[in-house]
Amino acid sequence: MKKFAAEFIGTFWLVLGGCGSAVLACNYPGAGIGFLGVALAFGLTVVTMAYAIGHISGAHLNPAVSVGCWVAGRLDGKDLVSYIVAQVFGGIAAAGVLYLIATGNGSSIGSFASNGYGDLSPGKYSLGAAMVCEIVMTFIFLLVILGATDSKAPNGFAGLAIGLCLTLIHLISIPVTNTSVNPARSTSQALFAGSDALGQLWLFWLAPIAGAILAGIVYKTCFASPPEGR
Amino acid sequence: MKKFAAEFIGTFWLVLGGCGSAVLACNYPGAGIGFLGVALAFGLTVVTMAYAIGHISGAHLNPAVSVGCWVAGRLDGKDLVSYIVAQVFGGIAAAGVLYLIATGNGSSIGSFASNGYGDLSPGKYSLGAAMVCEIVMTFIFLLVILGATDSKAPNGFAGLAIGLCLTLIHLISIPVTNTSVNPARSTSQALFAGSDALGQLWLFWLAPIAGAILAGIVYKTCFASPPEGR
Amino acid sequence: MKKFAAEFIGTFWLVLGGCGSAVLACNYPGAGIGFLGVALAFGLTVVTMAYAIGHISGAHLNPAVSVGCWVAGRLDGKDLVSYIVAQVFGGIAAAGVLYLIATGNGSSIGSFASNGYGDLSPGKYSLGAAMVCEIVMTFIFLLVILGATDSKAPNGFAGLAIGLCLTLIHLISIPVTNTSVNPARSTSQALFAGSDALGQLWLFWLAPIAGAILAGIVYKTCFASPPEGR
Amino acid sequence: MKKFAAEFIGTFWLVLGGCGSAVLACNYPGAGIGFLGVALAFGLTVVTMAYAIGHISGAHLNPAVSVGCWVAGRLDGKDLVSYIVAQVFGGIAAAGVLYLIATGNGSSIGSFASNGYGDLSPGKYSLGAAMVCEIVMTFIFLLVILGATDSKAPNGFAGLAIGLCLTLIHLISIPVTNTSVNPARSTSQALFAGSDALGQLWLFWLAPIAGAILAGIVYKTCFASPPEGR
Repeated sequence: MKKFAAEFIGTFWLVLGGCGSAVLACNYPGAGIGFLGVALAFGLTVVTMAYAIGHISGAHLNPAVSVGCWVAGRLDGKDLVSYIVAQVFGGIAAAGVLYLIATGNGSSIGSFASNGYGDLSPGKYSLGAAMVCEIVMTFIFLLVILGATDSKAPNGFAGLAIGLCLTLIHLISIPVTNTSVNPARSTSQALFAGSDALGQLWLFWLAPIAGAILAGIVYKTCFASPPEGR
Repeated sequence: MKKFAAEFIGTFWLVLGGCGSAVLACNYPGAGIGFLGVALAFGLTVVTMAYAIGHISGAHLNPAVSVGCWVAGRLDGKDLVSYIVAQVFGGIAAAGVLYLIATGNGSSIGSFASNGYGDLSPGKYSLGAAMVCEIVMTFIFLLVILGATDSKAPNGFAGLAIGLCLTLIHLISIPVTNTSVNPARSTSQALFAGSDALGQLWLFWLAPIAGAILAGIVYKTCFASPPEGR
Repeated sequence: MKKFAAEFIGTFWLVLGGCGSAVLACNYPGAGIGFLGVALAFGLTVVTMAYAIGHISGAHLNPAVSVGCWVAGRLDGKDLVSYIVAQVFGGIAAAGVLYLIATGNGSSIGSFASNGYGDLSPGKYSLGAAMVCEIVMTFIFLLVILGATDSKAPNGFAGLAIGLCLTLIHLISIPVTNTSVNPARSTSQALFAGSDALGQLWLFWLAPIAGAILAGIVYKTCFASPPEGR
Repeated sequence: MKKFAAEFIGTFWLVLGGCGSAVLACNYPGAGIGFLGVALAFGLTVVTMAYAIGHISGAHLNPAVSVGCWVAGRLDGKDLVSYIVAQVFGGIAAAGVLYLIATGNGSSIGSFASNGYGDLSPGKYSLGAAMVCEIVMTFIFLLVILGATDSKAPNGFAGLAIGLCLTLIHLISIPVTNTSVNPARSTSQALFAGSDALGQLWLFWLAPIAGAILAGIVYKTCFASPPEGR
């Protein structure tokens, strides 16, 4: 139970912090934080939760991460579904709180930081470009996660490396898909943003999980330290 | 005495650094640091003090943090009031120095980075939105503080995780309340900003401390490692 | 093989992350990440790979780094050419993926984040200024790499120090040459940017490698800890 | 000799990186890094050098830091003058290289990132405001340096805390004095900027050193751990 509560709260924070900064602060006139600030916010949700709850649940905060860790042998299969359920509900709870705050000055929520391709892509990138982008970004994200938590990597730094990797992924790809690499984050925002975003949600489950599975296989095959590594 | 001097100087730095960057540099024409820079500044006041004085007083720098730590059993009750007094006076001293500097080019101090809701909210967010935002932000802030300093969390990284959490909180919520989560910081600025800000000051004691108490209870109940943890 | 695969993937990420952020997100209207975001992205490619694959290959991701490490006695001469080949091919693969994504909204690729001097310098800096800049930047980059991985430097922090050094180098020198300090990164972008960039590519092999060799000699002569240092 | 060479190169990097980013990249049209980028650059010069040469010389890179460390009993008096000489000459060498690069597109050097008050202050702050600001900023900078390197502070993190403190100081005070807290950095830029800057240089020796001496005394008296601390 402790692990699932941690994943719920952690993903709550990822969505509230990442999407909240995008909805509330990105385009504030004259002093807005821009994509750079949003990228930093997403990454810092992971940095903060990695150190706060990493020792409890591993701080996945993302169904694609849990799938990739399971493929690489880092997560027990019996926990996989519970992790994903906790993450999705944590994200939805955050979107609800964000809805309360964001509408508190009478604003509409707009696209509510939802993900999309084609007409819903910030820079109007095609489905093909969006799919390549999400697969590759999640593939590298999982390689970094698996490598930085390898028994031979320096102790304690994984939370920084992984969180800053999410920042980096956003620095590259917000214009393409508004950056998902995380089906829970895409789901929570699409539920509030409405039917157009929901109609594209399949891609933001398919592509991140495909990239994560591929990374799990590549890491296990090519890079994993033998168990007696430490 | 050493602990209280550390909290005085640490909170002095939090207010001078965080509010100082907002007052002096946020909107500098053409090269201003914006909300992103202010968010970074607030976080770095905590990062720097965590490593400089964390081993002396714990570097709370914030009455809500001290209350949350006391609820979670991390601060001795007999030190609680002295910590809070030292923090409030440290903040006021910083606001005085900032007043001296900021008026040194003949400028008025404007809102002096004070916190507010409704008409005093940067983005005109309602009292309800402001209250939800401050409670939730402080709740997560305390969970990160208590988790990152848990005996099972990686050694030494807490200062980075906690400081960067304050940066993240500002990235999200400056438009809503100008971000408090810290009654000492709200008090020092309201004293100089004047009666409108003082009239709203109650919220920035109530909401952060409520969020902190809630986090202390949740952490102690659900997440704390047993004392023999390390 | 494991080492060369790591260098291939690592340099793939350096080019996709660094040049990708420049091509896709630097100038996005209203919320673009600017040179500051691009500088952060380049540095974070190194931070993330240092912790993910540093224990496998050292995470050089850059022919000049490999040459400098070889001169300083940190890389076995028999691996040098294979490292460089893996880095160049990793960079080219990334440029190919970036081409696919970047053209996915019908845009042209423009200069594709290639490096240049004179008319191809962002700020129109001369060949002489570009050469001095690239030599000095790579010289210091290698001193930081060799110093931060010295046996007497604090354990585990090298990845942060080295990655943030690359961020710093970009904060200074993007206007001068679009910042190379890395012949693999220059080659991959020039291949797609076309003949003008290819005609200036010699400088971005010559200057970084000259700076790296100089740093290797200076470090070995003046600063290296004796082997029994730890 | 090794120590003095390290201080020479380290201060060379501080001036080239910090002032270089200000001169070359701060106001680049459309994508300039602004004061936030310059603040980050100054801090990262210290982060990178702390890990690269901290184990050799302590990476002071600043006469005020060396004086404060000497007052606090952390630097041998017989090294003080040599440290300061190495720092000043390292700064001047960097200003020379920066002059070569910056004029390489036919630009004039303008104020060359020199420090000033009154008419030479970016925000036209008075001599009094400038003096208070420089004294207080250097006072806290030294407290952070002495505290983060105390035997009871977490091992290895001092370089990050100290470098990020310099970033924070710049986030606050660039509008006031263009931020010195470092007489070597002020001297090198004033020599190239000309007689107006040279006429104000006295303040940027006096105020940082006064703040540093005060911090050395306060730290030694109130906060220093007893020698048997670890």
